[in-house]
Amino acid sequence: MEPIEAEETTGLAEELRGHLAEPEAGRLRERLAAIHPADLARALRELAVAEQVTLFRHLPRDQAGAVLAEMDDQSLLTLVQALDQGEVSEILDRMPPDEAADVVETLPEEQAEQILDRLPEAESEEIQGLLQYGESTAGGIMTPDFVAVHEDMTVGQALEHLRKSASGEGAFYVYVVDDHEHLVGVAPLRRLITADPATPVHAIRRPDVISVTADTDQEEVARLVTKHNLLAVPVVSRENRLLGTITVDDVIDVIHEEATEDIHKLGGVAGDETVFDAPARSVRRRLVWLLINLPTALVAATVVGLFEESIRAMAVLAAFMPVVAGIGGNAGIQTFTVIVRAIALGDLTRANTRKVLRREVLIGLINGAGIGAVAGLVAFLWKGNALLGVVLGLAMVTNMVIAALAGTLVPMALRLLKLDPAVGTGVIVTACTDSFGFLSFLGLATLLLRFLQ
Amino acid sequence: MEPIEAEETTGLAEELRGHLAEPEAGRLRERLAAIHPADLARALRELAVAEQVTLFRHLPRDQAGAVLAEMDDQSLLTLVQALDQGEVSEILDRMPPDEAADVVETLPEEQAEQILDRLPEAESEEIQGLLQYGESTAGGIMTPDFVAVHEDMTVGQALEHLRKSASGEGAFYVYVVDDHEHLVGVAPLRRLITADPATPVHAIRRPDVISVTADTDQEEVARLVTKHNLLAVPVVSRENRLLGTITVDDVIDVIHEEATEDIHKLGGVAGDETVFDAPARSVRRRLVWLLINLPTALVAATVVGLFEESIRAMAVLAAFMPVVAGIGGNAGIQTFTVIVRAIALGDLTRANTRKVLRREVLIGLINGAGIGAVAGLVAFLWKGNALLGVVLGLAMVTNMVIAALAGTLVPMALRLLKLDPAVGTGVIVTACTDSFGFLSFLGLATLLLRFLQ
Repeated sequence: MEPIEAEETTGLAEELRGHLAEPEAGRLRERLAAIHPADLARALRELAVAEQVTLFRHLPRDQAGAVLAEMDDQSLLTLVQALDQGEVSEILDRMPPDEAADVVETLPEEQAEQILDRLPEAESEEIQGLLQYGESTAGGIMTPDFVAVHEDMTVGQALEHLRKSASGEGAFYVYVVDDHEHLVGVAPLRRLITADPATPVHAIRRPDVISVTADTDQEEVARLVTKHNLLAVPVVSRENRLLGTITVDDVIDVIHEEATEDIHKLGGVAGDETVFDAPARSVRRRLVWLLINLPTALVAATVVGLFEESIRAMAVLAAFMPVVAGIGGNAGIQTFTVIVRAIALGDLTRANTRKVLRREVLIGLINGAGIGAVAGLVAFLWKGNALLGVVLGLAMVTNMVIAALAGTLVPMALRLLKLDPAVGTGVIVTACTDSFGFLSFLGLATLLLRFLQ
Repeated sequence: MEPIEAEETTGLAEELRGHLAEPEAGRLRERLAAIHPADLARALRELAVAEQVTLFRHLPRDQAGAVLAEMDDQSLLTLVQALDQGEVSEILDRMPPDEAADVVETLPEEQAEQILDRLPEAESEEIQGLLQYGESTAGGIMTPDFVAVHEDMTVGQALEHLRKSASGEGAFYVYVVDDHEHLVGVAPLRRLITADPATPVHAIRRPDVISVTADTDQEEVARLVTKHNLLAVPVVSRENRLLGTITVDDVIDVIHEEATEDIHKLGGVAGDETVFDAPARSVRRRLVWLLINLPTALVAATVVGLFEESIRAMAVLAAFMPVVAGIGGNAGIQTFTVIVRAIALGDLTRANTRKVLRREVLIGLINGAGIGAVAGLVAFLWKGNALLGVVLGLAMVTNMVIAALAGTLVPMALRLLKLDPAVGTGVIVTACTDSFGFLSFLGLATLLLRFLQ
């Protein structure tokens, strides 16, 4: 992904700060109206809390809600706690209920309750209804706004109902329900327009509507939308009663979120860590990972310890240890990156596992020969010791094959154990390339020690 | 991302193979009709080419096209080359032009030309028109199908035009053009339905339509769609003439593609490598990366070489080298993973750079103290040498701070140099943690050598 131009954010923040210093708020208000809520949410982060509050109070209520919806949890919390509860309630009242629920979810329980108490009862209940669903489930990302018509209505009646309904321009599907409000089909707007107004809706509905239940994982929703090219997915209860819909823009947010999570997991950090988190939170979560990593590093240390005699006799061996381990580790990372992603994309199946493993080992062998030859030559030219070059080269070929095997088999094994292959693979694979790399290099050197010196 | 159930693919492939063995094709055809093209594309990969061809010939033309559109490049190429050119042309003729162009793009030039020659002239020209755009540009992913109405039409006329147009159910926007076919607005279907049929379209159009030019990068398109919650983006020429549209389902594919690319780049592999690629291709592309990596590994080797005397005197130092380097490397990976992603998301700005750097150094310092204390204690208990434990612990604290600095500053510097921070950061950061880790550990040990032994 090409980086977003971050310079613009800082420029915007500085411009807004300038407007804040002006005696009249007219120009500030005019300028604010022209800024996209997402850009404003970014710029707010760069201002002091007092400045944020002042700016925020100049925003029309609707835009204020849109900005809140775009903010990261940490910034949102800071700002909401600096505003009056009455103000927050008024803004929430104007927000789509799903977005309002996301804001309330970020707040400490007591404050959330107080703010909900100030809302009109209908809104408060709608938001509380949404809050009962897990944050990353279909229920947690759906909106209770949708257009539903009874199957016995005519197309003309359905269009009339649609015209009167308060739902936004995003409603491109009309859902069809039966007497018990069970979902029995969907009618795309396009089809309603084209049909004869006297036709009953049940005659033109698509009965094979794809729906999810409220507890469906948001990733599964994203997968369905991707696979079936949907613009929205209806969410139903266990009894097939229509509860809400998830629109494709929310699904896109889920896909971005999941990409960040996948990247973070491979790097050994929590999926939802951001550069705005309090350091204490990151300290704890990252330290756990490093502590898990320690025993594997100690295994490599034990392997080296086995060859202390050889190293004492020929200290130059220690100098080449990082070359064997470093290149092997990087080759292992290349392999597991491709494999972990292939698993996530469903490209690795029972039938092609062997072929993929053979492919990786072949690549490891060829690249091992290539990089081993170059590194061996460098070692020979540098230390004037041809046999040292040969030992280094052979150890590197071996380690590249180890890297291919570990990089392929470790994520596959984690998958078989129903564990997430993205978490932990990196540590185990580099532990393998470290340990086996040292074993092959120092082992071979020890065998040939009297010829080497 | 939760992995897709790969078992199902193999199961489906085996089931289809079973149907192929039956004397009558009736059941096979019935079964095929019920399978989603994406699932069928996956299952085909597990069958022999001859089986693929037979199966493919039992597919209705439309479904055959949908399956081709879902296949990866390598599998597509194999299958298309096994089919007759006439068959391929017939299938392409039924496909949406953007998808047909993607298929043609995958073929060797000569074959592509022969297949295009067999298509009706209009289709062939449409596809060739699309082929002129780069694969990852707006032109490369747009479809030339759209509904456009003149601004002077009434809403009633526009709806009538829409009813007659051949475009699919995915057309939820009607584009408004002037006398010169310049794009002057957009009318969401919902708004057309609600408006009085006698209103002129220009009165209800949204004039602030967001459009892109054909050479816009597909990532920029994805960013616009994400930010403005669009369902489709019109693509215009430099003169603002409407050329086509990009629908949100194609944008979702781009987002998935870019996520894979981002993950691969961090792992040092080409963005578009798949486990189905020919090994030779991957060998070359990965080897380049490892060769770039070699000099950095040799720098670490040189650092160790400076301390050969100390290692000879106290070979146990070599055993703890991988602990210092390994943990430091992992901490560096944690930091740059968060930073590279923050850059991609636009979270890192001129104004917050210092704060983010301070945050990372603080985390490094605290985690360094924690992991250094544990590792030092282990070294003391293992080797019975308290001072060795202290030296190891101090070196680890230092290296964790180095990891934080390098993990933050390297991607930032690459960004300033207009280079992609996801490419190369890993190698440079781990080279830093290796070299400085050895320098601090072996350097400190050398200074204290007479007390250590």
